[in-house]
Amino acid sequence: MTENLLEKVVSLCKRRGFIFPGSEIYGGLKGTWDYGPLGAELKFNLKEAWWDYMVKQRENVFGVNASILMNPKVWEASGHVESFTDPLIECKTCNERFRADKPADIKEHENVHIKKKEKVSWTEPKQFNILVEAKLGVVEGEKTTVYLRGEITQGVHVNFKNVVDSMHPKIPFGVAQVGKAFRNEITPRNFIFRSREFEQMEMQTYVKPDEKEAMDMFEFMKDLRMKWYLMLGMNKNKLRFREHAPDERAHYARAAWDIEYETPWGWDEAEGIHHRGDWDLSRHSKFSGQDLSYFDQETKERFIPWVIETSAGAERPLLYFLLDAYAEEGERVVLKLHPKLAPYKAAIFPLLKNKPELVEKARGIYRELKIDFNVVWDDRGNIGKRYYAQDEIGTPACITVDFQTLEDDTVTIRDRDTMKQERISIKDIKSLLHDKQK
Amino acid sequence: MTENLLEKVVSLCKRRGFIFPGSEIYGGLKGTWDYGPLGAELKFNLKEAWWDYMVKQRENVFGVNASILMNPKVWEASGHVESFTDPLIECKTCNERFRADKPADIKEHENVHIKKKEKVSWTEPKQFNILVEAKLGVVEGEKTTVYLRGEITQGVHVNFKNVVDSMHPKIPFGVAQVGKAFRNEITPRNFIFRSREFEQMEMQTYVKPDEKEAMDMFEFMKDLRMKWYLMLGMNKNKLRFREHAPDERAHYARAAWDIEYETPWGWDEAEGIHHRGDWDLSRHSKFSGQDLSYFDQETKERFIPWVIETSAGAERPLLYFLLDAYAEEGERVVLKLHPKLAPYKAAIFPLLKNKPELVEKARGIYRELKIDFNVVWDDRGNIGKRYYAQDEIGTPACITVDFQTLEDDTVTIRDRDTMKQERISIKDIKSLLHDKQK
Repeated sequence: MTENLLEKVVSLCKRRGFIFPGSEIYGGLKGTWDYGPLGAELKFNLKEAWWDYMVKQRENVFGVNASILMNPKVWEASGHVESFTDPLIECKTCNERFRADKPADIKEHENVHIKKKEKVSWTEPKQFNILVEAKLGVVEGEKTTVYLRGEITQGVHVNFKNVVDSMHPKIPFGVAQVGKAFRNEITPRNFIFRSREFEQMEMQTYVKPDEKEAMDMFEFMKDLRMKWYLMLGMNKNKLRFREHAPDERAHYARAAWDIEYETPWGWDEAEGIHHRGDWDLSRHSKFSGQDLSYFDQETKERFIPWVIETSAGAERPLLYFLLDAYAEEGERVVLKLHPKLAPYKAAIFPLLKNKPELVEKARGIYRELKIDFNVVWDDRGNIGKRYYAQDEIGTPACITVDFQTLEDDTVTIRDRDTMKQERISIKDIKSLLHDKQK
Repeated sequence: MTENLLEKVVSLCKRRGFIFPGSEIYGGLKGTWDYGPLGAELKFNLKEAWWDYMVKQRENVFGVNASILMNPKVWEASGHVESFTDPLIECKTCNERFRADKPADIKEHENVHIKKKEKVSWTEPKQFNILVEAKLGVVEGEKTTVYLRGEITQGVHVNFKNVVDSMHPKIPFGVAQVGKAFRNEITPRNFIFRSREFEQMEMQTYVKPDEKEAMDMFEFMKDLRMKWYLMLGMNKNKLRFREHAPDERAHYARAAWDIEYETPWGWDEAEGIHHRGDWDLSRHSKFSGQDLSYFDQETKERFIPWVIETSAGAERPLLYFLLDAYAEEGERVVLKLHPKLAPYKAAIFPLLKNKPELVEKARGIYRELKIDFNVVWDDRGNIGKRYYAQDEIGTPACITVDFQTLEDDTVTIRDRDTMKQERISIKDIKSLLHDKQK
């Protein structure tokens, strides 16, 4: 199954309304994806699970939500205008362009030509800036070039002073953000893994400029982030830490580790935990001329804080959760998504759609559950087919209203993973669905 | 108060961490705003309240989440490349540019020159396309011009076929979306009211091509949308419907009404409800060459559905809720935000910060509440000051732990709006906070 697992997930996503190619009816737009009804819910649930765990449940963490369009000086200060580059090479045979630092992509392309008995040769690598340019202003010749943010991080650093002045946080404190970023990717690929438009879920933790405090926070964050994947049910054996090799690290990074997942194309990045020292705030302080230091009320010291960053995409974890959850068991395909992530929390069926008393009873339950949960109604085909259809989209529970329900207010609840059916009282459904979310 | 209400709200937003000018430390970027810790929560709550009411609680409604970057043909088909324009005039004295269709802006600018005894004269209006251009592609000279979506609507229509094929919805059905859009606004103004980057909350309802069915849905939607503002506590007297004059309507709009709010600068748009006929699907069908018809299983008819659209920004309602909630009562400033919208649901105080037994007890309550609610800890200054600080950011309840708490497990809970204090049992706090959300 592994060799075509990705294809199977892509096909399921399209067929069942999770993810579609962007602008598909117009032949698409490379590196963009649209989320359908189930994908929109799944992505929302994933981001909410991150926010709950990293912001709402923790102390001394503050959310922000900065603009995608920023003053272009931000990207000069951050170093992105100068060095947010990928090495680009061009195939001399067909002029297609690739990232020189992705040998697997290059090999794959070479094989295409080799099979056709064509020549294989490449231009020298050239640095190519991947910031996406946009034009703002009201007169054609006078429009200003701005950039769509290439990462959401800078929106946090640029608001450091605003957050400190309005919230008066005690150090160490975190500032979290979730939002879109854009990159002019040379080779978007592996479905939603590498695309031109994507979302990030990030936390910048500001700490005292002290190596021990910084590394303690670094270790805490590594641990916290790994626990998040495990809490949401990801297979432990498919997750690992990997330390960046010295030549992989940005020059300002004092420590850099990735959390990786074992994908069908090998181990690949889920997110990074980085010790960025005072790089960001110092640069923004210098380029903006603003004092971005922090005054510690307890020690009466003033300093530029250091930053421990945890930086995840939303789409990569989303894809890994889908890959991890996909299973074929006999005739059924089942997405064993954690109930927190599952688009629908339960499906409600009347045993027969042509018995008004069953339908009416089932609709009452459906409407009542809908107040608290995203539940779905289904009355098509027989119960077995409905189970299979719900398994494939990861619905954790199926609730059937039958003739016994009319007598004693119990329903059959069928579990997605064990396929076991139980009779429970209608009044217990809500607490059972709540428990599943934990 | 009314005359400077906007200034007061802007100042509160900045001071207390709701909304900051975008890229502020770099002198800003006109027409962009960053949301701070409280604003990010408020905006999230607003969007969630919309989604809950319009999608989750309703039947036959499907969410989607399309890319901001779309194939440029989408915008040709939709008519935006040709006619998404504002009439632009230039002041001949100072070369500043304005929208010719905004007489209040023009008047205001003229007054500046008149006061300085300068000449007032304008160029002829010129149509200016407000789509924001971006460049995609990997070689400088060969980059393609794409557009940042100028409205989120087209992301829904372009996925119409995908939604129908994957979800098999029965007509009438709704497709909802929340997300960012961008416009090269000539005169961003009135704080977050008119900006270059903003979010929209939209629902496209697809109905049979029948005038009665369409108008019934239109009336239903007008009513539903007005109820949403009232449910969230907006002052009824500050809301009204306004029908578009014939010359305001897009040529394809068969009916168009706005919900307006009485702002400090006069009645202005909150959102629009539009009957768009088959314009969108017909155009996309024609330009893409795809069949975007719907087959009705019940009547065995095939047709291009008509569309009833409800289109709200996220920022305009957000601003109106802030303006509506702002009150000055004696010495206190209070934001009477609906508890669903309030950034913090409650604040927890130990009566004295130097009594460890009080602090420990209060922290236990804080941690327990934090599992379910976004609550805030405060131990600064005296209780009166804490109340005032929480009133100003709209926290509906303040919970104080005092010496009596240690004896009988009761706390003082103080209501933001009535300022009444009650003693309640610790075990009742959660259900009380839940009830406030309703």
